[in-house]
Amino acid sequence: MKELEKITPQETDFAKWYTDVVKQGNLIAYGPLKGTLIFKPNSYGIWELIQKYLNEEFIKLGVKNVYLPLLIPSRLLEKEKDHIQGFNPELATITQVGETKLEEKVYVRPTSEVLFADLFKNSTESYKDLPIIYNQWANVIRWEKTTNPFLRSREFLWQEGHTCHSNPMEARQLTRTIISLYAKFLKNYLAIPVIVGKKTPKEKFAGACSTYTVEAMMKDGRALQSGTSHYLAQNFSKPFGIVFKDENNNKDYAYQTSWGVSTRLIGAIIMTHGDNRGIIIPPKIAPIQIDIIEIFANKNPKVRDVSKKLLKDLGRIYRVNLDNSEKNPGFKVSNSEIQGTPLRIEVGPRDLENDLVTIVRRDTLEKIVLPVNQVKKNIKSLLNDIHNNLFNNAKKRLDTNTIRVNDYETFKVEIKKQKFVLAPFCCQIEAEDLIKNETGATTRCIPKTMERPFKTMPCIICGKETKRFVVFARAY
Amino acid sequence: MKELEKITPQETDFAKWYTDVVKQGNLIAYGPLKGTLIFKPNSYGIWELIQKYLNEEFIKLGVKNVYLPLLIPSRLLEKEKDHIQGFNPELATITQVGETKLEEKVYVRPTSEVLFADLFKNSTESYKDLPIIYNQWANVIRWEKTTNPFLRSREFLWQEGHTCHSNPMEARQLTRTIISLYAKFLKNYLAIPVIVGKKTPKEKFAGACSTYTVEAMMKDGRALQSGTSHYLAQNFSKPFGIVFKDENNNKDYAYQTSWGVSTRLIGAIIMTHGDNRGIIIPPKIAPIQIDIIEIFANKNPKVRDVSKKLLKDLGRIYRVNLDNSEKNPGFKVSNSEIQGTPLRIEVGPRDLENDLVTIVRRDTLEKIVLPVNQVKKNIKSLLNDIHNNLFNNAKKRLDTNTIRVNDYETFKVEIKKQKFVLAPFCCQIEAEDLIKNETGATTRCIPKTMERPFKTMPCIICGKETKRFVVFARAY
Repeated sequence: MKELEKITPQETDFAKWYTDVVKQGNLIAYGPLKGTLIFKPNSYGIWELIQKYLNEEFIKLGVKNVYLPLLIPSRLLEKEKDHIQGFNPELATITQVGETKLEEKVYVRPTSEVLFADLFKNSTESYKDLPIIYNQWANVIRWEKTTNPFLRSREFLWQEGHTCHSNPMEARQLTRTIISLYAKFLKNYLAIPVIVGKKTPKEKFAGACSTYTVEAMMKDGRALQSGTSHYLAQNFSKPFGIVFKDENNNKDYAYQTSWGVSTRLIGAIIMTHGDNRGIIIPPKIAPIQIDIIEIFANKNPKVRDVSKKLLKDLGRIYRVNLDNSEKNPGFKVSNSEIQGTPLRIEVGPRDLENDLVTIVRRDTLEKIVLPVNQVKKNIKSLLNDIHNNLFNNAKKRLDTNTIRVNDYETFKVEIKKQKFVLAPFCCQIEAEDLIKNETGATTRCIPKTMERPFKTMPCIICGKETKRFVVFARAY
Repeated sequence: MKELEKITPQETDFAKWYTDVVKQGNLIAYGPLKGTLIFKPNSYGIWELIQKYLNEEFIKLGVKNVYLPLLIPSRLLEKEKDHIQGFNPELATITQVGETKLEEKVYVRPTSEVLFADLFKNSTESYKDLPIIYNQWANVIRWEKTTNPFLRSREFLWQEGHTCHSNPMEARQLTRTIISLYAKFLKNYLAIPVIVGKKTPKEKFAGACSTYTVEAMMKDGRALQSGTSHYLAQNFSKPFGIVFKDENNNKDYAYQTSWGVSTRLIGAIIMTHGDNRGIIIPPKIAPIQIDIIEIFANKNPKVRDVSKKLLKDLGRIYRVNLDNSEKNPGFKVSNSEIQGTPLRIEVGPRDLENDLVTIVRRDTLEKIVLPVNQVKKNIKSLLNDIHNNLFNNAKKRLDTNTIRVNDYETFKVEIKKQKFVLAPFCCQIEAEDLIKNETGATTRCIPKTMERPFKTMPCIICGKETKRFVVFARAY
């Protein structure tokens, strides 16, 4: 058993804090190929719960899960020009099998729009066959130059929804329904508040007509794009020939959407809730919700008996782990804290003299001493309180650190303070490039609440009147 | 909506029947790259239930789910010589990214022994860290020359368990525990009986010390290897340096196992239970367990009311689909039969005059007319009966068609009759090659029940006395 190492404080070096807790929390290891990650049980368990709960939400919308191939013949990916241009520099390319050269290059999917388009083209004879609402859980490969656990790696896991509709209104509506679903999911399961909005032309998905996003604020003030939903219009259905006959027997090309969240969400959880003792996992998606920790079990046999009974009773309802190892109590407590288990129950000889145990909240570190027989009925509300407290803290931070400016000078001052800055902006690509070069900030989105403002304002760069208010931030 | 096409009878051409029902049952489509498959909701839904129930079984053994990278640097895969030799001709090889050539070739995983070995080498300081029992659900790529839906394709989905132990007895025991778990799972969830046994040296996994297998008999008498469990001994731990200190502080190399089942199981389900009307999915892993079919809903409004009520009542407990389309009843019934839904409930105006509905079992085609209010309480036992009937039929077929022979002449006659033939056999690789060349049959396994026979017999090929009795069959 290795010793626990010190965690760099967030205030000292946030990036170092992040890699420290990811490692000490036993979340990942690095794969043998540079830029690849191993998801250990502590992080894969979070992902499994994200899958479970998102699937439950998707089913309500009529989403059906499917699985499409990993491999894409090059001619297929090259059909939609913006799309291939966007992805080309990151495409892992298979050129041989064993010792044999392939006649045609094969790409490892960076995303699956073209595969779904190719499937849909044979599935949409009539408007009666529509909508088709598919989703897949899959791995994708994008050959990133830098690596940051969960945030940027050559392979990541995600869900990608792909849909086909007989009219643009329905497709646009689904794009928005999904982004709202993501926002609610992040709030209700991950305790993460977000700003919902539309991407600017520069930042939208390669091949999309428009892209919606949910943007979260990390504890260092940087933004993390946490989920996107694209209205593809007919951009893929035309080159791929996804044709259907409408109610009047006229042919039309289908209207499409695609949308996804990825294992980035695990990074979002860590950087939204973590503190200097380690990570904090919101109760609903914590693989272990309660750590029961035996303290000096050798001093009183009741310690072991009560621990086992709690494990049995609570284990029927919650995800519980019992640490009955002989390591010293301080180590066991630190280990539970680093791994971010929402509640721990310390079962020790002194408390047990009065039939008591100590429950400790990971978020507030508050200690609650309770009679053994009162534990079970208090857990539910404690876990709820933790969820709400995590969310409220994050929401307060987001609100406090999102500020509105009307000129570029103020903008430059505020963006340095690691804030989200909302400003009137023309959304010209050159203006966005200028801001990025001068400040390191990028546009995150045009917030939903700002889509139809009452009056126009001059753009902070070009000075032309604009109706658009855009959130800028430095981003992961 | 496309018309349903005729299904080739099993007796006429079993292979054609198979591809017909796979297509008509809406299970798969072919991917744009030759040899790849698209898992549509009807087949992916089966796989999701297989995942769910296997995960439940794995958890009881302390298995933890993880996810390791898709990509393997070539130097890593080349460390274990038998292993790389076994897989080399099928290895998809990435040599460039975008327009840039890579310095080192990267393989797309055909299996993950070397990745797990590389992870384990840093995780096993002491015997106290062992056992490590990991599993992953993943896609793998093997560049097969031929394609057969679910059975042979360039990409398939599977689970692969990988474990590390401090002593060989424990590792060997786990190898056997897992193969028994697979046999029970196939029986209890897929209604498939199997022969459990050990592979001959020729047929064992490249890199393993020994391989256990569960072999199922398809309706055409051919064998389908449906799950394997390998004892790897120290074959990977030595080249990879997976070292631990034992209780006496001596260094030793870890003892390992690996084991898996794949989407082949869906092929096994189809070819074990299907009939000339289509596939038959065992109730426990059927994505839809009950089809409610409205018959002439326009003739009596009660049809719609009763169908909806049944959907609501049964949908709380079972996976239910309501076909309330306006297609003709015959089409709707055929569609339900082709897709293999275990039970259908026909709700029609004539039955409803007496408050009755007709339940039809997919396996026996038996019709059960019941009062509407008696439906719910009969479903559970009906689904159980279907499961048991499917299993018993398959078991009877396996038992009847597995025969024992003592000489090669009889062997050649019997193997032509599409049977499993059990024979005393020396297990020499040359003898196996001879049988394969002359009869098309391969060794499937040395059955567990035959591992310690009372007396020796002369091998059907070389005539030398042997204790081994081996099952031969033509196999998928």
